[in-house]
Amino acid sequence: MTAPHARTLDRDTVLCISLAARPSNIGTRFHNYLYNLLGLNYVYKAFAPADIAAAVQGLRGLPIRGAAVSMPYKETVIDLVDVMEQSAAAIESVNTIVNDDGVLRAYNTDYQAVADLLAASSFDRDAAVAVAGSGGMAKAVVAALRDTAFTDVTVVARNAETGRALADKYGFAHVAELGGVRPAILVNATPIGMAVGAAESELPFAREVVDAAVGALDVVAMPPTTPLVQAMRARGAEVISGDAVIAGQAAAQFELYTGVTPTAEQIREASEYSRK
Amino acid sequence: MTAPHARTLDRDTVLCISLAARPSNIGTRFHNYLYNLLGLNYVYKAFAPADIAAAVQGLRGLPIRGAAVSMPYKETVIDLVDVMEQSAAAIESVNTIVNDDGVLRAYNTDYQAVADLLAASSFDRDAAVAVAGSGGMAKAVVAALRDTAFTDVTVVARNAETGRALADKYGFAHVAELGGVRPAILVNATPIGMAVGAAESELPFAREVVDAAVGALDVVAMPPTTPLVQAMRARGAEVISGDAVIAGQAAAQFELYTGVTPTAEQIREASEYSRK
Repeated sequence: MTAPHARTLDRDTVLCISLAARPSNIGTRFHNYLYNLLGLNYVYKAFAPADIAAAVQGLRGLPIRGAAVSMPYKETVIDLVDVMEQSAAAIESVNTIVNDDGVLRAYNTDYQAVADLLAASSFDRDAAVAVAGSGGMAKAVVAALRDTAFTDVTVVARNAETGRALADKYGFAHVAELGGVRPAILVNATPIGMAVGAAESELPFAREVVDAAVGALDVVAMPPTTPLVQAMRARGAEVISGDAVIAGQAAAQFELYTGVTPTAEQIREASEYSRK
Repeated sequence: MTAPHARTLDRDTVLCISLAARPSNIGTRFHNYLYNLLGLNYVYKAFAPADIAAAVQGLRGLPIRGAAVSMPYKETVIDLVDVMEQSAAAIESVNTIVNDDGVLRAYNTDYQAVADLLAASSFDRDAAVAVAGSGGMAKAVVAALRDTAFTDVTVVARNAETGRALADKYGFAHVAELGGVRPAILVNATPIGMAVGAAESELPFAREVVDAAVGALDVVAMPPTTPLVQAMRARGAEVISGDAVIAGQAAAQFELYTGVTPTAEQIREASEYSRK
């Protein structure tokens, strides 16, 4: 008989975890796949915390090497860590905690992944960009746009308070609706298009806006081919899809936890496995 | 390629751990082997806590289902749990914490395992019993002797303070040395005979005392065939060896964590695997 746990876990095995009210299996599958592929003595497990402050205490006390932080804890943990690194401090939102010998350092690899993907894109830096959304992911995307030299950015959000605050922070514009404007680059930083939810088959922008755009970025990873991604790709437009964002942010976490940089092919393989 | 972690861990996997300053691999191998054999979605990992109070907070907060507690935390955790169950309260020593929906219950399965083994033995309840040692394991053994109806027990310990306190608690005798007495049943509750240590080849009692005994219990599990066990077995005497104690206490933990009772054959198999 096979005993995979018994064969692979021992007293030296390093634990990394995720903290989310409703954990998915994506992180667990992505990280464990790569640990195994690269022969690292690590194991990854998702938690739905009973008490977030006590859970972070556990990170220190056990100790646990690192934690992915998801909804609704991305802001809560700010007061529980020791050091806010630049990526998390800039957008006041944490998606990763690394325990460095008892010092808890907070990062935001969503921001990092989006910035890396934008930097590698051939999007015109002077093009008009519209960002739908004003939540945590929108904060990461807008900061990344600013930091990769985009200048003409409009936050499109019906929530005037959060929308205006986000736009003002970076000297960008805010509108409740696009109206007749046709931005060249469209960014979806809302859940519209996600597999779980009523808006699965909807576009985050009006059809005529989508038809006029030349590039897009969608943060929705499940499915990676949202209606927006599908419509843009059908026209041969350049698209950054949500699976690239989630793989990029997970790879950045992986590197922070292990110090090992997987190849692009290994990340692709793990990412594909994680969504099966 | 095979990806055992990725294949077996998901968001519903239940975590159990151990807390010890110097973890062995025995518990990790024993529990993971049985989880796998019985198809339970559990995983077990050993920790050397950076901070025991914060680690127990983590047990609550993450949450973690259960923790084995070893040296030097068996007394420390008393103030950190919610309920001291009878087995732990009786000897003021905890070797197991179970998290029941946020209520941390403390047990001592060493006590339970020794009591079960003594109850199943054919040792004469009126025979003279000598117990070498006055530490945590001696507390468990002496309480178990009392609770399985042994009446003539002597604690043999050079440490007069702990030796007398232990004996007095149960109305038993204490001596610093056995002298000319030849008890029928010998109990080793010291590390003498352990594989790691200077006393590996030594007996916990004088050779002539061992030669006169008719039964023995040794708590040392590594190796299970200590010089005491070897000498007694060579004469065909009834012996309870340390591997039976450690397997019995681990099986009791397993049952507390999972609610599943493994068969004697499964416990034997896991126990054998755990010491490989």
